[in-house]
Amino acid sequence: MVNKKLRMGMVGGGSDAFIGAIHRRAALMENDIDLVCGCFSIDPEISLSSGRSYHISDNRIYKTYKEMFEKEALLPESERMDFVTIVTPNHYHFEPAMMALERGIHVVLDKPMTFSLEEAKLLQKKVEETGLVLALAHVYSGYPAVKEMKARIARGDLGKLRRLYVEYPQGWLAERIELQGGNNAGWRTDPKQTGKAGCIGDIGTHAWHLSEYVTGQKVIELCAELSTFVPGRPVDDDGVALLHYEGGLKGVLIASQIAIGEPNNIKLRIYGEKGGMEWRQQDPNYLILKWGNRPREIIDVGNNTFLGDFALWNVRTPAGHPEGFFEAFANIYRNFTKTVMALRNGEQPTESMLDFPNVYDGVRGMQFIETMVESGWKNDKKWQPWIE
Amino acid sequence: MVNKKLRMGMVGGGSDAFIGAIHRRAALMENDIDLVCGCFSIDPEISLSSGRSYHISDNRIYKTYKEMFEKEALLPESERMDFVTIVTPNHYHFEPAMMALERGIHVVLDKPMTFSLEEAKLLQKKVEETGLVLALAHVYSGYPAVKEMKARIARGDLGKLRRLYVEYPQGWLAERIELQGGNNAGWRTDPKQTGKAGCIGDIGTHAWHLSEYVTGQKVIELCAELSTFVPGRPVDDDGVALLHYEGGLKGVLIASQIAIGEPNNIKLRIYGEKGGMEWRQQDPNYLILKWGNRPREIIDVGNNTFLGDFALWNVRTPAGHPEGFFEAFANIYRNFTKTVMALRNGEQPTESMLDFPNVYDGVRGMQFIETMVESGWKNDKKWQPWIE
Amino acid sequence: MVNKKLRMGMVGGGSDAFIGAIHRRAALMENDIDLVCGCFSIDPEISLSSGRSYHISDNRIYKTYKEMFEKEALLPESERMDFVTIVTPNHYHFEPAMMALERGIHVVLDKPMTFSLEEAKLLQKKVEETGLVLALAHVYSGYPAVKEMKARIARGDLGKLRRLYVEYPQGWLAERIELQGGNNAGWRTDPKQTGKAGCIGDIGTHAWHLSEYVTGQKVIELCAELSTFVPGRPVDDDGVALLHYEGGLKGVLIASQIAIGEPNNIKLRIYGEKGGMEWRQQDPNYLILKWGNRPREIIDVGNNTFLGDFALWNVRTPAGHPEGFFEAFANIYRNFTKTVMALRNGEQPTESMLDFPNVYDGVRGMQFIETMVESGWKNDKKWQPWIE
Amino acid sequence: MVNKKLRMGMVGGGSDAFIGAIHRRAALMENDIDLVCGCFSIDPEISLSSGRSYHISDNRIYKTYKEMFEKEALLPESERMDFVTIVTPNHYHFEPAMMALERGIHVVLDKPMTFSLEEAKLLQKKVEETGLVLALAHVYSGYPAVKEMKARIARGDLGKLRRLYVEYPQGWLAERIELQGGNNAGWRTDPKQTGKAGCIGDIGTHAWHLSEYVTGQKVIELCAELSTFVPGRPVDDDGVALLHYEGGLKGVLIASQIAIGEPNNIKLRIYGEKGGMEWRQQDPNYLILKWGNRPREIIDVGNNTFLGDFALWNVRTPAGHPEGFFEAFANIYRNFTKTVMALRNGEQPTESMLDFPNVYDGVRGMQFIETMVESGWKNDKKWQPWIE
Repeated sequence: MVNKKLRMGMVGGGSDAFIGAIHRRAALMENDIDLVCGCFSIDPEISLSSGRSYHISDNRIYKTYKEMFEKEALLPESERMDFVTIVTPNHYHFEPAMMALERGIHVVLDKPMTFSLEEAKLLQKKVEETGLVLALAHVYSGYPAVKEMKARIARGDLGKLRRLYVEYPQGWLAERIELQGGNNAGWRTDPKQTGKAGCIGDIGTHAWHLSEYVTGQKVIELCAELSTFVPGRPVDDDGVALLHYEGGLKGVLIASQIAIGEPNNIKLRIYGEKGGMEWRQQDPNYLILKWGNRPREIIDVGNNTFLGDFALWNVRTPAGHPEGFFEAFANIYRNFTKTVMALRNGEQPTESMLDFPNVYDGVRGMQFIETMVESGWKNDKKWQPWIE
Repeated sequence: MVNKKLRMGMVGGGSDAFIGAIHRRAALMENDIDLVCGCFSIDPEISLSSGRSYHISDNRIYKTYKEMFEKEALLPESERMDFVTIVTPNHYHFEPAMMALERGIHVVLDKPMTFSLEEAKLLQKKVEETGLVLALAHVYSGYPAVKEMKARIARGDLGKLRRLYVEYPQGWLAERIELQGGNNAGWRTDPKQTGKAGCIGDIGTHAWHLSEYVTGQKVIELCAELSTFVPGRPVDDDGVALLHYEGGLKGVLIASQIAIGEPNNIKLRIYGEKGGMEWRQQDPNYLILKWGNRPREIIDVGNNTFLGDFALWNVRTPAGHPEGFFEAFANIYRNFTKTVMALRNGEQPTESMLDFPNVYDGVRGMQFIETMVESGWKNDKKWQPWIE
Repeated sequence: MVNKKLRMGMVGGGSDAFIGAIHRRAALMENDIDLVCGCFSIDPEISLSSGRSYHISDNRIYKTYKEMFEKEALLPESERMDFVTIVTPNHYHFEPAMMALERGIHVVLDKPMTFSLEEAKLLQKKVEETGLVLALAHVYSGYPAVKEMKARIARGDLGKLRRLYVEYPQGWLAERIELQGGNNAGWRTDPKQTGKAGCIGDIGTHAWHLSEYVTGQKVIELCAELSTFVPGRPVDDDGVALLHYEGGLKGVLIASQIAIGEPNNIKLRIYGEKGGMEWRQQDPNYLILKWGNRPREIIDVGNNTFLGDFALWNVRTPAGHPEGFFEAFANIYRNFTKTVMALRNGEQPTESMLDFPNVYDGVRGMQFIETMVESGWKNDKKWQPWIE
Repeated sequence: MVNKKLRMGMVGGGSDAFIGAIHRRAALMENDIDLVCGCFSIDPEISLSSGRSYHISDNRIYKTYKEMFEKEALLPESERMDFVTIVTPNHYHFEPAMMALERGIHVVLDKPMTFSLEEAKLLQKKVEETGLVLALAHVYSGYPAVKEMKARIARGDLGKLRRLYVEYPQGWLAERIELQGGNNAGWRTDPKQTGKAGCIGDIGTHAWHLSEYVTGQKVIELCAELSTFVPGRPVDDDGVALLHYEGGLKGVLIASQIAIGEPNNIKLRIYGEKGGMEWRQQDPNYLILKWGNRPREIIDVGNNTFLGDFALWNVRTPAGHPEGFFEAFANIYRNFTKTVMALRNGEQPTESMLDFPNVYDGVRGMQFIETMVESGWKNDKKWQPWIE
């Protein structure tokens, strides 16, 4: 039957995790997905108790993801998982993702896509071989106002783009809280789990992705400085970069996890020859338009206002009833779901359905990290070409 | 089994409705509810197609709510609906709600609770007789910042309360769009469907409820003016009132649907002897604290910040990742769900679980409408006592 | 010579006063006025030391205003004062103003214009007899954004006006600080000095005046409630009113001096059939335009932006360089000055020159106080006609 | 006499100029200065008509500044100018300033101080030789909120400083309006009049100065990129730089004149180990304090609030009555005036009196331009040491 729900499995996302609960709500909100199985924690006790609290029967709560993929494969096609959401630390992204793809299971991954660029390229190859769908949780591209920016730039409202400022200041790592345990800072600041970069991998990639998503232009070279402000921390906790995009756009990217007192203040400003735009995720339902020859405009996001079809497809409320982080996340799941359903039905997904970050964004994200690390810690060269 | 999901049915909420989709997402987000049946529209075609799109099997998509309640009663207890959500125009609230209560089914109702005060009192009586749970969708009380206001006032942070301003300006009825059809304005401006009041019933009740919820004080008399600014409209589209609360607090309530260009700008300000607070739903994750002897403070809503337990129970994200309208709605469903589950398990629901608008709020809401209408159209008396 | 500066005297405004220094800077900023004499305090010591600090020679620093007017009259016409600014408590407005007018001296008065309505009418009569100019310091009407609102409404941008909200919450009198001395609260809360009303006279009149100035409509009846929240205070410290304007506009006026934590948050919102506008004095250089069929607009006040001539006449900077309270005040002085200079030269002042609050605004302000007091403390009548 | 007003002359500032009128109002507002003479334009007609409109007698309106300095020197000491304000394009700063200093006349200069670094050093030498006072109009350091930031950092509120973002986006040069004439863009984009840098000299210096003023730390090296986005323009119209300060603080500086739709959005954010601060000149009366362990605070600038003495010295109103650009400017004049008066009286000026940008700031400003130009157009070196 065409309209059957998708069955979702999870790797990670136990009751002790932050981002897993975000994914779960985002996935389930639209009523097109059932959570049917999972290995929710490296600790089997937590996995079991978590799975039960998610109303999953014990026989589909697994001790390892290897076991999950093997046992699910033995279930009838009408029961087994259609896709897996992987929300583990970075060094546990690649293996379960590859296992899933090898078994015909679609994948949703948190970002950055992998631990290393090499792993990312292998995933890309496997996705291309299998024709399966891989979605990446660059959540900020899921906001309707962001999609409206993208659409307006694509149709030329701003004219030729000149200047871009993207920033993501956070303050939660202003002290070395990773030593205290019991929080999400541990693996994020451990190079063996998080990879070559700390702040730049965790939130710098979000800022970079947002800039490429909205402008439709790719970074070709950059000049970066990475810093570790908190003594003893083995990865960067702050970074800045000057960016050159194809097409002449120039950018400044700011990311910091020691900007004390800042929650998650990601913000994007773009200026072209004819106009500018501004958006900030902490007030995500306002899109500010700037002009040289008429007053500034503010569009309230809503399905009864002044958005084009590309953004409207991702809107659930009239203006003034704020949608937020979960709904942006849900837009990724929703478009991923519709794409998988279309493929299942032998149909070509529309452009709107395909509007979610994919394996190519994931590879570029790892290249961004490589390039930033190469430039950011060295002083002998000003401009570092993008590392493919 | 303790942790079994609740099974939800719906009256209304077809693909042509606005608020139904809000309820559905809010209900499903937490993964503790399954949507199992419904009569989604007065038009059987729309009901069927809507139900199918919600992945409900045809045998549980009903033509009338009467049929639904009768047929569901014949299902085994392990399958039949646990509660019903009713999201029809006001004149179709009472009958299905009463049918549900008579059959042991819990109820979630949109506001105002009924068409008339008499109906409301009958529902109250039935709820008291049956011990069933009735939740009312005064969504603004579901926001964590609002709950934090309530908790801080209850513990005396502001001292004795003096002055309150609550306002809900909207602009969508600035023209007589109800004549165009195809929108939600039709029944809302038709006294036969909406009841004695238009604007005051639709959004005035929200503003009033928010004020009583946060302060813990009840209105005892008021002086109102209702207006119809758009020619030909048979109900009020604007209202204001001066309010006296028990305990000496004085309020001003503003509600308008002709405040052109305003989305849903509900805002609450309260001032006591020792401090003040302010909150606005269009930027719902900021709670502003005002003091006489130290700087203004802004609390960013988040589970890692400066909220007390009462609010934190209703928070899903760290500060800076905005929760919005759906999550506020989801908090009503979540607490309702936990209350029903507790009762099912023979446990006493906690204060946090019981923190959702209930049948008593519904009765007071209808009394508010009565009192406003009595005062608002008459000029011979300044202060109108609350109509019980 | 046409372009000679005006010579200014002062009554009040010693070094111990707040509003005097505001007037002085506002008057001098434009380089068209010289401060030449004054009786700056009821205390001759303070008057003398203040005058010296203002670089005035001792022989023109007077012990009483009576002495000032008498002695200045003996000076050659080329030296004696052209106008007097009176910035004393309300009960000392009338006498010096009348003395000035009787001697051919123009007058700038702080608001409310007088202690009683009777005094106000006598001043009006005298102004009409003498043809002299009397300006009243309703400073908020001096802001360019406010003037732009007035001009846009006058030309019909908003269509027929429907709804107005004007509010002026302050918190500085949340405690009974008038008992401490050494501040401006003393006379403002003493009925023998301030008159019949406290809060409503001090800031309610500002809110009322702003509403009539911007809309060009006059209040014809109102329903008010005055309150005294701080025990023992002999005047109102809070008031609200529902307002009916000629032409069908309905308003809500809020004024409070016990809204703890609020600085001077005067704000005006107006909605018509075609659009709405909003302005707030604490961010005075933004004018918000609201529409039903296109995005909200924000005009940055500046001489290089999107203002009409009526407002531009009162602008000194390009957008983004904020003008504030002093410049709004200075606009009153500037237009007063240009009017006096034009009359001196036998010319007819232009509409732009005459754009400052005058004796008629002063009389209406006193009528507003009368009407508010009559309605605000009584409960037997809902609507109180404007008291002429 | 101790309290005698200062007599001010002007070079530039005719009726066709923008910044001259700013200086004039800022100087006169405090009633401690008289404008007595000037050469207001390179065009003698404009100079004459301007001077007359400023109420200056014809014999003290000069055709050239050379003539002014010579003739003024012949006047009795009790009449001749005490200081000169120079508000000409950059290439006409040095000569009149030097002439003034050589004649014992104090100087107020607009920024950047001179056309070249060499000229700046000569002025410094002359100031040191003569003991005269030279003030520089880095207006943003005149805002009370900025001074409060400086004082709080100096006393250690933020702990060791880590990260600074300073930005000054403007949009007025997004098109090549300098070709149209009749505006201030002409000389600012002509290297023969403005010097080596366009945007970086005009507003980049403001951003840089603000950062050093507030933090008390000096830039020691930087990595910059200058750009010219508008084709044909011979100077930069945009620049960015990564900054290293002595003491470990790292900064990002953004300046642009092609950020279309931005008025004058200069903004400063600083983060230390213990807290952060933010200020924005378009809303200048709010100072935002950010903390890791308690809510964000907002201080409303005002003489009745939570500012320390260093800032309070520069405040004129209670909170909520906004001071703006003129008052910030006036603070420079006020402190300059008090310093000159103190010196005249043989007294040592206090730290508060000396709180205005001086000749050393001017020299560093020119060094900043040199360093930015050296780094900003070259690609072979990442970090450019500060050019002394």
